Amino acid sequence: MNILVVNPNTTCSMTETIGQAARKAANAGTAITAVTSSMGPVSIEGYYDEALAVPGLLIEIARGEQAGAEAAIIACFDDTGLDAARALAGIPVIGICEAAVRMASFIARRFTIVTTTERSRIPIEELVKRYGAAGDVRVRAADIPVLSLEDPQSNARDRLRSEITSAIAKDSAEAIVLGCAGMADLADDLTREFGLPVIDGVSAAVKQAEALVGLGLSTAKRGPYARPYAKRYDGMLADFAPQLLSGT
Amino acid sequence: MNILVVNPNTTCSMTETIGQAARKAANAGTAITAVTSSMGPVSIEGYYDEALAVPGLLIEIARGEQAGAEAAIIACFDDTGLDAARALAGIPVIGICEAAVRMASFIARRFTIVTTTERSRIPIEELVKRYGAAGDVRVRAADIPVLSLEDPQSNARDRLRSEITSAIAKDSAEAIVLGCAGMADLADDLTREFGLPVIDGVSAAVKQAEALVGLGLSTAKRGPYARPYAKRYDGMLADFAPQLLSGT
Amino acid sequence: MNILVVNPNTTCSMTETIGQAARKAANAGTAITAVTSSMGPVSIEGYYDEALAVPGLLIEIARGEQAGAEAAIIACFDDTGLDAARALAGIPVIGICEAAVRMASFIARRFTIVTTTERSRIPIEELVKRYGAAGDVRVRAADIPVLSLEDPQSNARDRLRSEITSAIAKDSAEAIVLGCAGMADLADDLTREFGLPVIDGVSAAVKQAEALVGLGLSTAKRGPYARPYAKRYDGMLADFAPQLLSGT
Amino acid sequence: MNILVVNPNTTCSMTETIGQAARKAANAGTAITAVTSSMGPVSIEGYYDEALAVPGLLIEIARGEQAGAEAAIIACFDDTGLDAARALAGIPVIGICEAAVRMASFIARRFTIVTTTERSRIPIEELVKRYGAAGDVRVRAADIPVLSLEDPQSNARDRLRSEITSAIAKDSAEAIVLGCAGMADLADDLTREFGLPVIDGVSAAVKQAEALVGLGLSTAKRGPYARPYAKRYDGMLADFAPQLLSGT
Amino acid sequence: MNILVVNPNTTCSMTETIGQAARKAANAGTAITAVTSSMGPVSIEGYYDEALAVPGLLIEIARGEQAGAEAAIIACFDDTGLDAARALAGIPVIGICEAAVRMASFIARRFTIVTTTERSRIPIEELVKRYGAAGDVRVRAADIPVLSLEDPQSNARDRLRSEITSAIAKDSAEAIVLGCAGMADLADDLTREFGLPVIDGVSAAVKQAEALVGLGLSTAKRGPYARPYAKRYDGMLADFAPQLLSGT
Amino acid sequence: MNILVVNPNTTCSMTETIGQAARKAANAGTAITAVTSSMGPVSIEGYYDEALAVPGLLIEIARGEQAGAEAAIIACFDDTGLDAARALAGIPVIGICEAAVRMASFIARRFTIVTTTERSRIPIEELVKRYGAAGDVRVRAADIPVLSLEDPQSNARDRLRSEITSAIAKDSAEAIVLGCAGMADLADDLTREFGLPVIDGVSAAVKQAEALVGLGLSTAKRGPYARPYAKRYDGMLADFAPQLLSGT
Repeated sequence: MNILVVNPNTTCSMTETIGQAARKAANAGTAITAVTSSMGPVSIEGYYDEALAVPGLLIEIARGEQAGAEAAIIACFDDTGLDAARALAGIPVIGICEAAVRMASFIARRFTIVTTTERSRIPIEELVKRYGAAGDVRVRAADIPVLSLEDPQSNARDRLRSEITSAIAKDSAEAIVLGCAGMADLADDLTREFGLPVIDGVSAAVKQAEALVGLGLSTAKRGPYARPYAKRYDGMLADFAPQLLSGT
Repeated sequence: MNILVVNPNTTCSMTETIGQAARKAANAGTAITAVTSSMGPVSIEGYYDEALAVPGLLIEIARGEQAGAEAAIIACFDDTGLDAARALAGIPVIGICEAAVRMASFIARRFTIVTTTERSRIPIEELVKRYGAAGDVRVRAADIPVLSLEDPQSNARDRLRSEITSAIAKDSAEAIVLGCAGMADLADDLTREFGLPVIDGVSAAVKQAEALVGLGLSTAKRGPYARPYAKRYDGMLADFAPQLLSGT
Repeated sequence: MNILVVNPNTTCSMTETIGQAARKAANAGTAITAVTSSMGPVSIEGYYDEALAVPGLLIEIARGEQAGAEAAIIACFDDTGLDAARALAGIPVIGICEAAVRMASFIARRFTIVTTTERSRIPIEELVKRYGAAGDVRVRAADIPVLSLEDPQSNARDRLRSEITSAIAKDSAEAIVLGCAGMADLADDLTREFGLPVIDGVSAAVKQAEALVGLGLSTAKRGPYARPYAKRYDGMLADFAPQLLSGT
Repeated sequence: MNILVVNPNTTCSMTETIGQAARKAANAGTAITAVTSSMGPVSIEGYYDEALAVPGLLIEIARGEQAGAEAAIIACFDDTGLDAARALAGIPVIGICEAAVRMASFIARRFTIVTTTERSRIPIEELVKRYGAAGDVRVRAADIPVLSLEDPQSNARDRLRSEITSAIAKDSAEAIVLGCAGMADLADDLTREFGLPVIDGVSAAVKQAEALVGLGLSTAKRGPYARPYAKRYDGMLADFAPQLLSGT
Repeated sequence: MNILVVNPNTTCSMTETIGQAARKAANAGTAITAVTSSMGPVSIEGYYDEALAVPGLLIEIARGEQAGAEAAIIACFDDTGLDAARALAGIPVIGICEAAVRMASFIARRFTIVTTTERSRIPIEELVKRYGAAGDVRVRAADIPVLSLEDPQSNARDRLRSEITSAIAKDSAEAIVLGCAGMADLADDLTREFGLPVIDGVSAAVKQAEALVGLGLSTAKRGPYARPYAKRYDGMLADFAPQLLSGT
Repeated sequence: MNILVVNPNTTCSMTETIGQAARKAANAGTAITAVTSSMGPVSIEGYYDEALAVPGLLIEIARGEQAGAEAAIIACFDDTGLDAARALAGIPVIGICEAAVRMASFIARRFTIVTTTERSRIPIEELVKRYGAAGDVRVRAADIPVLSLEDPQSNARDRLRSEITSAIAKDSAEAIVLGCAGMADLADDLTREFGLPVIDGVSAAVKQAEALVGLGLSTAKRGPYARPYAKRYDGMLADFAPQLLSGT
């Protein structure tokens, strides 16, 4: 089974962290291809970065499908471009927030998502509402830049730990979801340290991709995820938009 | 990986249907043990049957965990006894309604569950609300007794087809979820026939069990799923209740 | 008028507390029969105990109806087995959480339920949501074992008082609901002490039972509360399940 | 026990219908005083009539409390002026919509309210939402003027029957609530005719009043129902506003 | 363009504050007529005052429409009598809470309303829920009498500032809405002082009135805001009710 | 006052329709600049087109703000890129769906949005939920391609009329909202034809822009709409992303 994992920001070191987590989570027979978007922000922090990351993300998903991927994962906790990717692709597409929230719901009734920056908190709260878990989930921001997670000198991990401590004490959190793809390598250590389930979205999405492919399920093509109409795209996008479509 | 699938009604032929669907869905390395409850109703149709099926179900889950199961599936679409089983067991426990609804949500925005009897419709609607998908899901009853699904002479499959047709025409359903464990063998044929994703809960639950075990995740033991307190159980239940607990 | 009050745990001293509260609340012409379940846990603390208490509870309700009860009350604040009992019985069945929440809603816009253990908090929050009062009600756990309420030496009442104080100060609670049948004798004293309405679920349920019987209303038998189908029940339950049904 | 029933419109013949239903519902020891407002519209059909009925209603409630009533019922299905009356009065105040919806919720999971005019439908839907039953209740308008219910020559009852038939067929209604005080005399006949519970709000409110008074419960006076501040009221209202307050 | 602003309490000095804010907000070509109700309480603090303010309010709106107003504003943050006024009037009617909440939603995702008294908090929370912003808005009470806002010696403004400080620190408020018409003159100073948008409902309502009139939009007269039926109104109200109606 | 209206698709004839509607709605002193995006799809039909329209849209908003626009309108009923534009811009940004839904809420309790294609229905339903009007609004698709609205030979207007007729008959719609910027020229005719308010989002957005600018209100810059962090943007976007940011 071939699964594509797209890092929709352009920072290759983060793609490595993500790819390792994905491979660790994957079944023996699953090949993970982790790619970095070539177009967009170096990190996704808020709505603006999210929007500018989408075209690059869509290119990678279209290319990956053409190259034989059977499912695609969007490795940003804002589930950047998820709906557009689902409409574009013939293969299932999974967001890591969505995957983490749904998997956490199988094992806990109240849990807390710890994300990076305050400006990402409300977008994630909106996702949680969309995924139907709003009453059961709190979102906390550790107030750390996304790229500081890549820097072993930063205090990012300490701030993260501090928010987990608060989540257990004040939110009655039964489990923790790590709210950034850049935290994908921390789940095991934090599980041990805090003695409760700590869920990483990249790993969760790999398992959901395997599950969907395993059952032969893909995005329903009636309704909002129907294949895009063939039409003209103007300007800079004209270079790749038709190519995207021809790939589906 | 060892996964226990419990049929919480006492009809062995249904367990066979369920077991076959589970094995078909499972990964190569996954062993499925499908067991029939020895205590309770021959089919689960409504709240009363559901309640009487729980003790027998809990016994099978406790036994299965003692025998080495790494996850347990409750193969009744009412998710009978799910919360009690989660509190009892040290391994993850998955309901087939929950698994089907969450997997369907990865591939469709509006879908319809087709179940058997009218008296099961509202319990399933309540589950859908609990799982956070109330706005996106319709529940239809085909008005067929559960056990008629085991009888090739009955018109059960025709009635089921008729409701799927209505779901597509009137509910804007993009996908269908089969709302009874006894329908587990029908998903593939109906997918082909109707040309849209048809999801069986037993298969979905197997994949979710593999996903949770694969990531080393199990039920959070803080909060409502904490291990039951050791205490006296009186009457007929005294025979098995302590035994259940000693197994956890 | 004959009203049956079932204590679904097997602790007779708690049945006495409950029976006294019920008799105190009842009209002059109402006879209260308070019975103790003979099968199940000595106290109900969380989902597991709840599930194991249901068969014993259903036996008592079926017996009570056969003996002439005109309404039945389930005297556990988790409203244990309420739906199954409603399907089974020809007489109205009332849960004490449901009764307390609905009566409190006639006299207060924001109120707090104080229950015993943390593991009961989320089940009660789910009930409150089901009863449509989620936005107006807070649930607090006093962190006391249920049976400590029967023990005059315990600090249970002090912890209860402490949570009521917090509810008034922090939740803007206008009234208090006592979230355990074992607190049924405390409502009057606490009302006087705190100077706001304190509502006991057992008393509330007695008044609702009198109201329904007085108007000749009973459970609707269309839909999810339709009389259970006659069918075979296997195993230990075979001893009483048909007997239950023959009583309806 | 003395219970005041206020008809907030000025049509005495409707007060008689209401009073009879109230007396029929009341316990042996309950005295019903049914009064007609002396100020306001002859029938309440929509928001405008509702608003103009409130001052007259408040006068009757204040007078009734001074005269010894232990609870007050507002006998209009819009629950006209309920919040203001609760703030004003020292005795519990009950709306008939509120009482009917809460009592119906003890015996049915899905029910339909049949009211008079289309312009009352949305106000009642708003009440149902406020009372937490929005997901379970449909509201239908029989398209009949309120006062036509008093006229034996009108086709009002036939239209009402027609909507009940639709509710059973199309809404999966398990029970019916009559959505106008002027229908208070019809519940018994319709119950027999349709073979499902038909609930009248006036009767329901009498039982809730008896329940609250029986338990010594009255409106919480912290928060939004705190006693009105003493202050000046100008204009026409100056004649009765202070008098109202002095009565509380 | 002629816009009527009704102060539904009888305190003329507050009408002046309101009128000034309205004129400041209005376009060059907009004439503001600010009137004081002649009937009702000197300030509106809670449900009781609200109800008694409605008849006087309706008179002013009917008179204003007869005199040529093209839109009417109800200048009390409880949106007193809004539905009745909409049914009565042929011109659009705007509540200041509604206007402020909707305008704030264009510029902020989370904001806090600071109102006067605790007894107004829940009515405003109910409005916020009705206007669809419940998940995004907190309501705080500064615990100040409405008329203290008119008194420069009072500490009302300090208490208001203190709640704004808390809203920013604890509610993650991105903007503030002033929850009382009597605060209409404070928005500019508080905006400067706190460095975030502070929205006054009177000003917001003036802009919404201009917007509706500018587009030729007025209240839909199908459904709940249909013109009141012609009927008899008894008692004190008989003096003005027909006159109101004849004006529409 | 200068207001920028961006057509986020690349079809100039639609920009003309939009610009005319905007100018007609604007106050005398308001200058409307209507621009066509130079990058993206020729029409926006579903999630994929929406995503590819965003970069071009953001460029126009950044340019417009630099050129002195005081508010920006996104003239696509999916409110394409609204959150990203709000984060980017220092001026208020208004979506036409948002503006139309909020304005309709001032004049109707139940209304229907009629949009073009089925694949746009669910995105609009999601917007309606986000704007807090989900319970009051129905969305219908007339099953017409967006660009057919530009073609006088097509049957687009007939299909639109047919859905309005259904909305009045079946949805109890009190008003209609036109769910596509390409319908901006039809509101007046349809209002006359159907005799109920018909609201165009472009006009509504112009009035809301005038309202916000008139009160000196702009997007709150705490929280999710805080100014984007300065960072590197790679690939094709590198050409304009920094330029966008330098303009804010």
